[in-house]
Amino acid sequence: MRTSIPETILVATLVASAALTNPAAAAPSAPWPPLPAEAPVPADNPMSPAKIELGKKLFFDPRVSVDGTVSCNSCHNVMEAGDDDRATSAGVHGQRGGRSAGTVYNAAFLSVQFWDGRAPSLEEQAKGPVTNAVEMGMKDHTVVVGRLAAIPAYVTEFEAVFGKGGLTIDNFAKAIAAYERTLLTPDAPYDRYMKGDESALNEQQKRGLQTVLETGCIACHQGATFAGVLPMGQGFYQKVPLIPGSVYDAKYDLLSDTGREQATKNPADRNMWRVPTWRNVALTAPYFHNGAVPTLDEAVRVMAKIQLGKDLTDAQVTDIVAFLGSLTGKFPQQTMPRLPGVEGKSVVPADPK
Amino acid sequence: MRTSIPETILVATLVASAALTNPAAAAPSAPWPPLPAEAPVPADNPMSPAKIELGKKLFFDPRVSVDGTVSCNSCHNVMEAGDDDRATSAGVHGQRGGRSAGTVYNAAFLSVQFWDGRAPSLEEQAKGPVTNAVEMGMKDHTVVVGRLAAIPAYVTEFEAVFGKGGLTIDNFAKAIAAYERTLLTPDAPYDRYMKGDESALNEQQKRGLQTVLETGCIACHQGATFAGVLPMGQGFYQKVPLIPGSVYDAKYDLLSDTGREQATKNPADRNMWRVPTWRNVALTAPYFHNGAVPTLDEAVRVMAKIQLGKDLTDAQVTDIVAFLGSLTGKFPQQTMPRLPGVEGKSVVPADPK
Repeated sequence: MRTSIPETILVATLVASAALTNPAAAAPSAPWPPLPAEAPVPADNPMSPAKIELGKKLFFDPRVSVDGTVSCNSCHNVMEAGDDDRATSAGVHGQRGGRSAGTVYNAAFLSVQFWDGRAPSLEEQAKGPVTNAVEMGMKDHTVVVGRLAAIPAYVTEFEAVFGKGGLTIDNFAKAIAAYERTLLTPDAPYDRYMKGDESALNEQQKRGLQTVLETGCIACHQGATFAGVLPMGQGFYQKVPLIPGSVYDAKYDLLSDTGREQATKNPADRNMWRVPTWRNVALTAPYFHNGAVPTLDEAVRVMAKIQLGKDLTDAQVTDIVAFLGSLTGKFPQQTMPRLPGVEGKSVVPADPK
Repeated sequence: MRTSIPETILVATLVASAALTNPAAAAPSAPWPPLPAEAPVPADNPMSPAKIELGKKLFFDPRVSVDGTVSCNSCHNVMEAGDDDRATSAGVHGQRGGRSAGTVYNAAFLSVQFWDGRAPSLEEQAKGPVTNAVEMGMKDHTVVVGRLAAIPAYVTEFEAVFGKGGLTIDNFAKAIAAYERTLLTPDAPYDRYMKGDESALNEQQKRGLQTVLETGCIACHQGATFAGVLPMGQGFYQKVPLIPGSVYDAKYDLLSDTGREQATKNPADRNMWRVPTWRNVALTAPYFHNGAVPTLDEAVRVMAKIQLGKDLTDAQVTDIVAFLGSLTGKFPQQTMPRLPGVEGKSVVPADPK
């Protein structure tokens, strides 16, 4: 969905639709179902414990960056909320990217990846940062595979999981994606509420939910992830700002990065962005594609203004922020991977460029 | 010990002494005892599970660096061999330090910390990197404490472990040190050999051990850590090169960093270095204080030449390297910490300097 639909109509439709199909529809005005316990798994990348463990190692291994300093976890820190607390992330050689790292938690439920939606799957996403010059800085995928091939235990593990000749960039991505499909945060207060526990949300959070519905936020923040997954399974993009001209355009530099247009080269996609998830949003400050909005209350205020043309009261903002806190789920307890070593030498070049 | 002792005399003394006092003296020419199962604990920093867990969180938390990118684990990666596979480490803003990160594993057994031994304890060591401009870049310890104080769950945890007002830089260091005292790698093949399992070392490793003894390497690489802990418990320093003038002085830039002299300002300490541990040395390439020596076989060859004046044969080098591999121990399996979050904002400044 690339064009804007009048929000009030859409919201009314969605809420009505949700009420009809939602098993917990008795809970008043809670439109989206609880987070599923498991993520969808593509047919060509079935899960296995060995694949997940290999993917976890790769996710944490800084040796897949040119100078051995940046791992997937550097910017998508699973010990925090799956991001990095920074406006934009730090890559190799002190470089800084232009967009804020999205959380890896529950990314497995998203139909497209990256702020501009340019990757249709976790597998495609995982192949990007390794060769991005300002992220991990590897020259190409051959170098990535060559680096891993220099670590004998990785060769063995790839072959155990994927068969002979299993160490390829596609299997690198598949293993990481399999691990990422375990990074789910179910059982948030919202989920318990939707399953019938009325006490799981406090009164303020319930007011916040009602305000979210009435204000129209869920026109875009759809589905169990509140991340705009349409029923037909397509990625959901939205123009930001939808109502340009506010003071926020300049204050938070909302227009200079043209978003999805950079991926599609289609002027109709200018300033279109994938709708970010609300899951764990209380823990993923700062906000927006460029991380320019420092606090969640300001993000709520700005979004209501630039997307829906509404000036929320401070009380409304506070209530919505309280509701958003009810989407902080339970993070999985994980064991640390042991990264395979190489005897007597480092696989990281002495002076990588 | 800051002055050099003729190696041959020292070695003879030590080997004789070890043979007299070593419970496994029946094993021929194995001079040092197995790694103890537990590290020494200072009276003023007793261990507790809550303190260790807090220390683990702090060890992994990049928010103790000015821009939120560097944690203790960035350079002392406990998922690898406790170091970072790099010649010198990467700090904030793409800066690079001048010395190679030492492994944190078994550091709890060392009587002094840092290459120049300037910290007498793990607690003192832990306070250094946070305010080092090229490492974590915090202005001073007040800023470190202030950053942590902005994270409510940390305040609560510090008080639970250390009592009211417990969030201080000294307690920050104590918690990290307590965690580090769990980072031990016992039960290496060498340890099993010293406990009587003759088959724990293969023939090549046994030859390597014999070569180590005969060559004189253990004049400095003393004790269960092979890191130069004298019986009287003092730190052990040695001049490198002890025999200057070889091609290696220039090739590996061995003289420009004057080592312990920089800490003591005493010209007698010029080019004196703390003896590094051999524990897990096969996994901690590259080598030497500046990481300039890329491989373990070259490190062995160079050390024999510049410290003992001996030209080892290739076979001797290979045997010693095989023996050193027998000092790779069992790394503890660990759960990942959950780093406490802050709701709705980041504690990392938007544009840290």
